[in-house]
Amino acid sequence: MGLERIEQLQESLQANGLVAALIMHPLDVYYYAGTAQPCNLIIPARGEPCLLIRRAEEFARRETWVKNNRVGASLRNVKHVFEELEISDGLVGVTEDNIPAAIYKKIQSTLAPAEITDVSAIVLEQRMVKDPYEIMAIRVSAKVFESVHETIMKYGVAGVKEIELAGQVYAAMRSAQAEGIPRNRRWDASLHPEGIICAGENTWHISGYAMTVTGVGLSNSLAWGSSASQIKRGDVLVADIGINKHGYHADIARTYIVGETNSRQQEIFDLVKAIQERVLAKIRPGVLARTLYEEAESAAIESSCYEYFQGYDGMKGRYVGHGVGLELDEPPTIDPYTRVTLEENMVLAIEPKLLVPGVGGFDLKDTVLITREGYEIISPVSRELFEIGD
Amino acid sequence: MGLERIEQLQESLQANGLVAALIMHPLDVYYYAGTAQPCNLIIPARGEPCLLIRRAEEFARRETWVKNNRVGASLRNVKHVFEELEISDGLVGVTEDNIPAAIYKKIQSTLAPAEITDVSAIVLEQRMVKDPYEIMAIRVSAKVFESVHETIMKYGVAGVKEIELAGQVYAAMRSAQAEGIPRNRRWDASLHPEGIICAGENTWHISGYAMTVTGVGLSNSLAWGSSASQIKRGDVLVADIGINKHGYHADIARTYIVGETNSRQQEIFDLVKAIQERVLAKIRPGVLARTLYEEAESAAIESSCYEYFQGYDGMKGRYVGHGVGLELDEPPTIDPYTRVTLEENMVLAIEPKLLVPGVGGFDLKDTVLITREGYEIISPVSRELFEIGD
Repeated sequence: MGLERIEQLQESLQANGLVAALIMHPLDVYYYAGTAQPCNLIIPARGEPCLLIRRAEEFARRETWVKNNRVGASLRNVKHVFEELEISDGLVGVTEDNIPAAIYKKIQSTLAPAEITDVSAIVLEQRMVKDPYEIMAIRVSAKVFESVHETIMKYGVAGVKEIELAGQVYAAMRSAQAEGIPRNRRWDASLHPEGIICAGENTWHISGYAMTVTGVGLSNSLAWGSSASQIKRGDVLVADIGINKHGYHADIARTYIVGETNSRQQEIFDLVKAIQERVLAKIRPGVLARTLYEEAESAAIESSCYEYFQGYDGMKGRYVGHGVGLELDEPPTIDPYTRVTLEENMVLAIEPKLLVPGVGGFDLKDTVLITREGYEIISPVSRELFEIGD
Repeated sequence: MGLERIEQLQESLQANGLVAALIMHPLDVYYYAGTAQPCNLIIPARGEPCLLIRRAEEFARRETWVKNNRVGASLRNVKHVFEELEISDGLVGVTEDNIPAAIYKKIQSTLAPAEITDVSAIVLEQRMVKDPYEIMAIRVSAKVFESVHETIMKYGVAGVKEIELAGQVYAAMRSAQAEGIPRNRRWDASLHPEGIICAGENTWHISGYAMTVTGVGLSNSLAWGSSASQIKRGDVLVADIGINKHGYHADIARTYIVGETNSRQQEIFDLVKAIQERVLAKIRPGVLARTLYEEAESAAIESSCYEYFQGYDGMKGRYVGHGVGLELDEPPTIDPYTRVTLEENMVLAIEPKLLVPGVGGFDLKDTVLITREGYEIISPVSRELFEIGD
């Protein structure tokens, strides 16, 4: 399985005229080598890959499927391996989207006259289609949301603070063997391990990076996620959670009413669900990913709620989902600009939201596997607006 | 306060011959502008800084002390501000240690003919010495460890799984208003929000990135932190936790015995404490930071426990601490190579460890403020080997 991943990358390297890839980010190394220990992985376009181990040798050796591995991962050692492989010039790929500039410059000078180019898109494109192990892992991860949901139904009552509920949710996730760290490729965003758990007006104040229901957090240093506000009777409560279990993510959100649902709340939730249903009905291999976004936008316009769809005023996000896997948010992004065509065994999070200031943010997000014929919802917990009793 | 930080950077820019700095990482923006919302901050060597706001305008405007702020943070907008400032060439600083290569290259091409250089060291050097607000914030953060300690004394009993205890500790931290995300400048490391909580043999198996007591985690994708192992009677249990509250960290570790302490365990802990005491006694302004490491190493050699000091065999780390602040691990690193001289109002974590395979990892870490005369331990909770009763 692991070696097939390497072979597939080698085919892409050849097709793109690269002589090798130097994989350095722990998540990318994990995908191709099976270990997330500190290592640099050299994958030549043709021939055997080599894993250079920086630290925790015993762990790395036990974990990896790369047979040619050795201790010492400095760039000087990388250069030696390139010499052994008789690679001196040509294009060498690194993931420029996550390697810091300072390291990039050292790679450039150490590997010269080889020229450095970006393989981020190649790596992420390969990762869009999941293999059977990955699909199993995402299913296992999604199941953790059952514990999350139970915890919210039990502790999400009036008088409890958002952060207290967040703590209980995290404890339930850890007991269900969630890793405790959601993975995220963005260099500038920070995700809470219990996701976004917020209630009342905090469900419609939009803060931070590339999220829609964000919460307002505890301080200016991290002004999103749960706050110290108490949950009040009648509040809309959102739990939008990226679960990482055994390295693979599921991304799921449910919306709750603290106490009894009123007709306006139910009406808004029903609109969100109707939009999600319209999107789901479009999912099958061969469809352009942007069709899903267009369908969501049309559904919102037709049901006269576009004003609140994925935010409001200047704070709207033109997307309705994204890929899910080793990272919580992977390509394809389901937006009007993506050129990706859906394929069997992609896994997507589909997440329409309506944020109505004065009423609440309503978020329904499911993790969905693309099957040969259409799709399968992987997330557990029924897709309804839940009432949390006293 | 915030404006003084900008002035101090401007002096450094002038002294180093730079015409401006472009600050992009949320933590760096937070330090200089008071907001961690998505912004780019332009600080010319002389004149008024300008904050370009990418998103969450309302939050950013309310939070920042930078008066000249406007919406739109693209690199094209950055270029316009440079034109207004009449900066077209010369050296422009960015933090090359945390900006991804892909963005760095875009900055290079957009701002040409200006030349891009690295200001990471200048920024981090400035941040080594804390201002009164920062010291207060670190004190507040350290106090959260009281809740951590109580939780461990209550829940860290035989039969409980490490991850279950980790969940309870996190819940206690969140209730005490910890942010839930420890901040870390390293691009390749991942820290659990409850730190490292592990027991028994997991206290001496060394995994992952730049840590000593690491735990073994739940899967190859993240093989450090708490595992699903049950805590056993007689185990050594370590809690090594980076607490982030209101943006500032405290870094504290304590070691516990599950049940009654035996004489070997007490003896090893006493050695760790004696090393820490020797290091602490050296702390005062004007001392070379590397003296602290040398003192720790001498103490370990003289008490015949160097074999286990900061790891064993090939897995030793030659350091005994680091700065603490907006990030959990900041300069100066207390190792034999650092050229930093200690100054009043630096805050350090001092963390000697003895890892004795077959017995346990013993970790004693305190957060320490350098005062005019010497030092003050900021961490709460007495520095002893605790027994967790049934």
